[in-house]
Amino acid sequence: MDNGEHTPLGKIGKFGLIDRISASARKENKTTASVIGDDSAVIDNVGYLTLVSTDLFLEGIHFNLIYSPLKHLGYKAVIRGISDICAMNGIPEQIMIGLGVSSRFTVEQVDEIYEGIRLACDKYNIDLAGGDTSSSFTGLTISVTSIGKVAPEKIVYRNGAKENDLICVTGDFGAAYMGLQLLERERKIYEKDKTIQPDLTGNEYIVARQLKPEFPVKTLSDLSENGITPSSMIDASDGLASDLLHLCKSSGTGCRIYSEKIPVDYETARIAEEFNMDPMTPALNGGEDYELIFTVPLSMLDKITRIENVKAIGHITHIESGYTIVGEGGTEIALKAQGWTTGS
Amino acid sequence: MDNGEHTPLGKIGKFGLIDRISASARKENKTTASVIGDDSAVIDNVGYLTLVSTDLFLEGIHFNLIYSPLKHLGYKAVIRGISDICAMNGIPEQIMIGLGVSSRFTVEQVDEIYEGIRLACDKYNIDLAGGDTSSSFTGLTISVTSIGKVAPEKIVYRNGAKENDLICVTGDFGAAYMGLQLLERERKIYEKDKTIQPDLTGNEYIVARQLKPEFPVKTLSDLSENGITPSSMIDASDGLASDLLHLCKSSGTGCRIYSEKIPVDYETARIAEEFNMDPMTPALNGGEDYELIFTVPLSMLDKITRIENVKAIGHITHIESGYTIVGEGGTEIALKAQGWTTGS
Repeated sequence: MDNGEHTPLGKIGKFGLIDRISASARKENKTTASVIGDDSAVIDNVGYLTLVSTDLFLEGIHFNLIYSPLKHLGYKAVIRGISDICAMNGIPEQIMIGLGVSSRFTVEQVDEIYEGIRLACDKYNIDLAGGDTSSSFTGLTISVTSIGKVAPEKIVYRNGAKENDLICVTGDFGAAYMGLQLLERERKIYEKDKTIQPDLTGNEYIVARQLKPEFPVKTLSDLSENGITPSSMIDASDGLASDLLHLCKSSGTGCRIYSEKIPVDYETARIAEEFNMDPMTPALNGGEDYELIFTVPLSMLDKITRIENVKAIGHITHIESGYTIVGEGGTEIALKAQGWTTGS
Repeated sequence: MDNGEHTPLGKIGKFGLIDRISASARKENKTTASVIGDDSAVIDNVGYLTLVSTDLFLEGIHFNLIYSPLKHLGYKAVIRGISDICAMNGIPEQIMIGLGVSSRFTVEQVDEIYEGIRLACDKYNIDLAGGDTSSSFTGLTISVTSIGKVAPEKIVYRNGAKENDLICVTGDFGAAYMGLQLLERERKIYEKDKTIQPDLTGNEYIVARQLKPEFPVKTLSDLSENGITPSSMIDASDGLASDLLHLCKSSGTGCRIYSEKIPVDYETARIAEEFNMDPMTPALNGGEDYELIFTVPLSMLDKITRIENVKAIGHITHIESGYTIVGEGGTEIALKAQGWTTGS
């Protein structure tokens, strides 16, 4: 967080800050008709539907500045925005950032947040198309508005799942949650004895999943190239169980998934054990996984098994069969969502 | 703020809250292809450009809950969103609200915020198209993402002002600022002696301008019906001086305005005097006016004087003439913007 310069925000003012942000704003996508510097972003999505999503990112709820580097925070905010557009099979193209910062922040710290934002924008081919900056009396507040496009025949909603459809997921689950538990543990140790430096060796994957996640945009193009359009889709942000239940409730169906098929990384499982936790707990309820959950017709089984980074974990059932997770040995448990927790 | 019910937010949870909000979500505009309940809003603006804007609305910066009724707050958030779309000559059609609330809020209080949001949506023909809800450890946070459409030939940017163009404004200036000063004064009196009830009689206009502003959308259709397309436009949110300077700097021009032509309401002037303030101070620098500042070619002078609610206050000059305000008696002063103040 320290690169030597500490310019108080008041010194450059709101408009100085906007100039600083605008100076390096990207405008690469053809649909970005106009970028920062006017009242609204202008989007020219002729022939496409426009997707817009908005998320809040609040200090103390979605991040803790003690262990979240500001650059990562900016990066993660963009990933969060991308996630909602991809969940509708859209192509994310623009992002708008609302930033509320208190006077305890310096210009250089705000630069770091935007450095992370730009890094993610470059990697995922997103244009920073505007936003809002404000002082804040409370914590650091980031709002993310993401914009994307999708051809009308390609759009995928949550409510299209049909009985017998395969339930598929990308990546693995529970890592971000275990990363957070680890960071929290190390923070508490450090606060008791400041001579002990946090040691995260061997747990780089789960820590990265928490602090600087990526999003499997490539999977969407892989599906498209293989002629697969999901019947329904949602992003996994509240937790696999909660988000799968959302999808089922929207579609008016039940589901049956198999715990042994749910992908969990080795690091996640190991740290869960250290915390005396069944690895299925973070995998089902951890949240912040930044993965996709989608359904495809059973006839796609052969095709889908050949797509990298995708695993089928169960199938859609009639609504009267309820929501079931089958554990080891064939035990059946009702799948439940957790309530209001992190607000993520 | 009290209607008898006090249900803790935790009792209905995040998803209960979303259900509550979705239950009465509007979907009136043809471009709103899909509303709340999926990952993104879906906008079908075929043949039009899509405008998107985002704003933050933070407790302690943009509002004070001591004198801002929650319903008004929701209403004002929508007006804020509309403002940015109209400033580009667009038609606002969708809004997305991000809400961060701490556990000290009840379900009924959140309902009040959304009641105000819906009231404004109904009045201005806007669809509530989604958003995000989150718990908050800090203050009440509202992010507003507004979406609108504009025909490509109708879009108006900030940068189109030409030498000799007339500078026009809608409504009047400084009222919201003086309303705030009055509310602040009454708050301090009340805090010293709680038996004294605030008396705002005779100042209803300036208080309403601060707490529950409206936006002159009708002026845009009046201009259009009279065949007038502004050469440049901006909404007045940071203050007349600051926003006019933005417009001039974007256009690469100077300006010359006349203080006697700047519309100031009688209540604004009277309260300014009570505060020993030149009424031009709030009119030029007060901010939060929710009016439009725009330019039209000089040839439109006759037409523009016939448009209700519009006044010409000066004209655009060559950039080398600078930014000038002509006071009573012909005194010329350089027009200056204020710096980072309310962050609005």
